[in-house]
Amino acid sequence: MDNKDTLRRLKTVEGHLRGIIKMVEEDVYCIDVIRQIQAVEAALNKVSTNILDNHLHSCVITAIEGQDKTERERVLKEITEVFEMSTKV
Amino acid sequence: MDNKDTLRRLKTVEGHLRGIIKMVEEDVYCIDVIRQIQAVEAALNKVSTNILDNHLHSCVITAIEGQDKTERERVLKEITEVFEMSTKV
Amino acid sequence: MDNKDTLRRLKTVEGHLRGIIKMVEEDVYCIDVIRQIQAVEAALNKVSTNILDNHLHSCVITAIEGQDKTERERVLKEITEVFEMSTKV
Amino acid sequence: MDNKDTLRRLKTVEGHLRGIIKMVEEDVYCIDVIRQIQAVEAALNKVSTNILDNHLHSCVITAIEGQDKTERERVLKEITEVFEMSTKV
Repeated sequence: MDNKDTLRRLKTVEGHLRGIIKMVEEDVYCIDVIRQIQAVEAALNKVSTNILDNHLHSCVITAIEGQDKTERERVLKEITEVFEMSTKV
Repeated sequence: MDNKDTLRRLKTVEGHLRGIIKMVEEDVYCIDVIRQIQAVEAALNKVSTNILDNHLHSCVITAIEGQDKTERERVLKEITEVFEMSTKV
Repeated sequence: MDNKDTLRRLKTVEGHLRGIIKMVEEDVYCIDVIRQIQAVEAALNKVSTNILDNHLHSCVITAIEGQDKTERERVLKEITEVFEMSTKV
Repeated sequence: MDNKDTLRRLKTVEGHLRGIIKMVEEDVYCIDVIRQIQAVEAALNKVSTNILDNHLHSCVITAIEGQDKTERERVLKEITEVFEMSTKV
């Protein structure tokens, strides 16, 4: 995957999360903390989407073009699983 | 896709939704209505997951095995798009 | 709650859902079905939000102003529960 | 709010997130990274739910028992807003 962009985004999220921890330590208003947590989640969704996009264009193409039926099945099943989980978090 | 199973599930959801409409007409307690709506959403997530699973095993395999790069790109992009949307609804 | 607006919205969702069932019967492209299901879920989220808003302005105010500690606790707990569930569907 | 529990949970999430950054640096399999991100999101949802629960039992009760209608309205509106956002992230 495009590690550089993913890493950059994840480090931004890490900084954001440290800011939230500081907010809680300083007893900032609850609702503002929840809003920042929701912003972090939106950012993480964007990271996951980008990782999946890269994954589809690399591993998934390779697996489907390959001759190993078990491997192909495994790769397709994983996509369904992360999609299902994405509807739950 | 496996239309029969999908149709069965969607018709169950339709019945569930009609039950919710009746609850609102009869002025049932708000929170109970919200809970039933959330149950309908969980059922719809399950339907989407099944449709995606079938889609991966049919159209996606065909598109990746095919020679049309534009078609392949289109199909992969759609998966990323529905994944991204699934993190938002 | 404002039953009239809620009912109108839910009946629109019901019509939308019937349209999706028809799409599946007519074997419409999988991804288009998933997108319509996601649109229904977004509409249902909007209905839940409106019901909660009305609930907060009626039952919750009554419960908190009332003297019954058990009832107050019950009403607050329900809000936390539907919030938690909303992060999962 | 119960800062101690919230802080403990957020610091666990921070550690988890640092682990994910390390996974990306070490080029771990994409799907495993997505799964860990989803686990972080589930943990953040739990934190938000706990903060909301504390908020309802403190600020919301105070605002509703108070005489300031504007303040009461503001507090109720915020709950609706974070609920609505929770259906989107």
